[in-house]
Amino acid sequence: MDKDLLVSQIMEKLQNMDAAGATGAAGAAGAAPQLSVGEAGKNYKLFSPGEQNGFTELVGTGLGDTIGLVIPNLDAGIHVRLGIDKKIRSLGIISSRSAVGPQCMGADDALKSSNCELVMVQLPRDTKGGAGHGILIIFGAEDVSDARRAVEITLKSFEWSWGDQYGNEAGHCEVQYTARAGEVLATCFNAKPGKAWGIICGAPAAVGLIMADRAAKAADIEIVMHATPNLNTSNSNEFMIMFTGDSGAVKQAAIEGREIGIQALTILGGPPVSSGGKPYIF
Amino acid sequence: MDKDLLVSQIMEKLQNMDAAGATGAAGAAGAAPQLSVGEAGKNYKLFSPGEQNGFTELVGTGLGDTIGLVIPNLDAGIHVRLGIDKKIRSLGIISSRSAVGPQCMGADDALKSSNCELVMVQLPRDTKGGAGHGILIIFGAEDVSDARRAVEITLKSFEWSWGDQYGNEAGHCEVQYTARAGEVLATCFNAKPGKAWGIICGAPAAVGLIMADRAAKAADIEIVMHATPNLNTSNSNEFMIMFTGDSGAVKQAAIEGREIGIQALTILGGPPVSSGGKPYIF
Amino acid sequence: MDKDLLVSQIMEKLQNMDAAGATGAAGAAGAAPQLSVGEAGKNYKLFSPGEQNGFTELVGTGLGDTIGLVIPNLDAGIHVRLGIDKKIRSLGIISSRSAVGPQCMGADDALKSSNCELVMVQLPRDTKGGAGHGILIIFGAEDVSDARRAVEITLKSFEWSWGDQYGNEAGHCEVQYTARAGEVLATCFNAKPGKAWGIICGAPAAVGLIMADRAAKAADIEIVMHATPNLNTSNSNEFMIMFTGDSGAVKQAAIEGREIGIQALTILGGPPVSSGGKPYIF
Repeated sequence: MDKDLLVSQIMEKLQNMDAAGATGAAGAAGAAPQLSVGEAGKNYKLFSPGEQNGFTELVGTGLGDTIGLVIPNLDAGIHVRLGIDKKIRSLGIISSRSAVGPQCMGADDALKSSNCELVMVQLPRDTKGGAGHGILIIFGAEDVSDARRAVEITLKSFEWSWGDQYGNEAGHCEVQYTARAGEVLATCFNAKPGKAWGIICGAPAAVGLIMADRAAKAADIEIVMHATPNLNTSNSNEFMIMFTGDSGAVKQAAIEGREIGIQALTILGGPPVSSGGKPYIF
Repeated sequence: MDKDLLVSQIMEKLQNMDAAGATGAAGAAGAAPQLSVGEAGKNYKLFSPGEQNGFTELVGTGLGDTIGLVIPNLDAGIHVRLGIDKKIRSLGIISSRSAVGPQCMGADDALKSSNCELVMVQLPRDTKGGAGHGILIIFGAEDVSDARRAVEITLKSFEWSWGDQYGNEAGHCEVQYTARAGEVLATCFNAKPGKAWGIICGAPAAVGLIMADRAAKAADIEIVMHATPNLNTSNSNEFMIMFTGDSGAVKQAAIEGREIGIQALTILGGPPVSSGGKPYIF
Repeated sequence: MDKDLLVSQIMEKLQNMDAAGATGAAGAAGAAPQLSVGEAGKNYKLFSPGEQNGFTELVGTGLGDTIGLVIPNLDAGIHVRLGIDKKIRSLGIISSRSAVGPQCMGADDALKSSNCELVMVQLPRDTKGGAGHGILIIFGAEDVSDARRAVEITLKSFEWSWGDQYGNEAGHCEVQYTARAGEVLATCFNAKPGKAWGIICGAPAAVGLIMADRAAKAADIEIVMHATPNLNTSNSNEFMIMFTGDSGAVKQAAIEGREIGIQALTILGGPPVSSGGKPYIF
């Protein structure tokens, strides 16, 4: 046996296994969402025409296995089946395997800055073995450039909107906060348009419940909606509250909930990791 | 330190880790379905009486963690609870952790070639952390040999029926096509009996939507059913269309949908792998 | 190239990859539930005040990513939203990513030995990519020490109650048995209070169906409830029967079901492992 050759073969094999292992670990239930290609902002990537390779509907990708598309002129048969208003010609689409909060925060901003309406929001039971949901958001516009703009703004928000989502092998917790809710948060989560709004979510469900209890006791908030495995979810293993109030109270509640959520997850599965890289609520 | 011995130990350790890694990777969300034992056709295995070890109801196994059983004479209490017609004495059962399309294509063939009826089809939310469903199919017959035959035909179809299903860490896409739909596809997916039928499915849902849009624009098809996370699924992260038309158009639509589905998945997670080994729709 | 150095580097790399691989395997869908910290009884851990780190609601943790909490005085707004009776001041909570049976067996014992009522039981679709459910159980009491006691008794039951649950990469099977059902089993699973009760569950669903068929033929049991992907589950890939009868028959049925369940799972994915370490039904 040629030992030199054997040792070289071993080193090559190790390098191949290491690469495969990194990809596998990334896909494991509970691990931080992955982005296979990144650009300057590593939480999303916008594709230039030169990078589309004939896939002209492609706008970009992002954390959570998110794909962003525009369909300038949806097939008429599908248009009718989806019950979309005839005046809407172009669709902008955000579709993710994992998470709801970051995408909804981004979509809320998107509708403030582009001439679109919210056509559809659906929450599949997903997160690739995790405890929560994925999401399908469809914007509608008469003009394709508005639809594209909405998708781009949503993807760009990924730079901050994933920051207060934390996960480990045992579960996840997430908080979101805005001083001024728009149409998406009002439609999906009972936010009062123009008012502060927040959400607290934890999994398994008792993590969300203790987050909610601590938050509601810490600040003067008004709960406008809640979610459990049997209510307002797709049977996810989550407990959530969605709330309003003055912006200081809403922010304080989110901060309080985040703290105990991280502590509870740490006890179950070690220190959870921020999906987006850094928190944004202070 | 005996370097020769150390190098031999390293090589042995690498071989063990490689075997474990293959099994682990196989179980990871989105990886190609596995079959732990194979025979000549590696996508399924039929068990001879000598291999059953007293498990006389066992017919075989297949991709997607599929088990095929016959129950010659189901317990009367369970028979009543499941609401099965009294004249049906024997059941043939196909049950999988992953996928719906391949099993339904095989079952559709099975009912054409065996004296059975379709008793039940249910779609649990499964795929072992993936974005889709598993399946439970129950055939009923007066004669146990008919029930067994239906299960065998379904399993044997796995040699081709998994071929146009593709998956990677980010999601999956699948197309199926037949020139002549039978009872299973008519009952489950609104196929017109005796006519061509196809299905296009992608995950996350926007992958299925762009597949459907491209397909419907490429060929003159009639959509007979569709599915979204909120409709006709168990909250899976999929969009699907089921369609009919003349066989050339249905096949062309499937081919068109497959192409953009593979392209979209590649952007999200690298080139997807055919679950069955090779496509069958050309 | 310094071969000695290279060989040492290879060995070190192998040791690091092995450690990472063990953690990954633990999280993979279908692997035995994990407990990150254990005490004398390794299936659960109770936290003393000194270990709580300010998290005074924390009672303990257990297999299945279970957390046990008490909330002495739930926030009034959440209390109202959850529709909890005003007289209930304190909540005891059991919340798990994986499994239902062990927790319900423990909760059934808990209600026999503490002055609590059953406020809520919900079954999210979970098991971290597996085929079944997680659980959320809420006990209610006027006195926080009763709520705490109920949670402690439930967690302590994990020493035996996980023992007849088996899993591998392909699925799982589980049986439970009691000679004397209490309020939790009566409320959730149609047990007759004070009478023997058992449950048989298997995944994928046909595993549960053959377990049920063999069990019902082996012993004189009365089926009081059943579950399929479409009925009495959150679209899990399971088939279950819940049954009563004299205690000898109920136990015999559970034993019979367990045997064929383990055999079926072995064929699909190799010998399944007992989640709790050792069976308790003999």
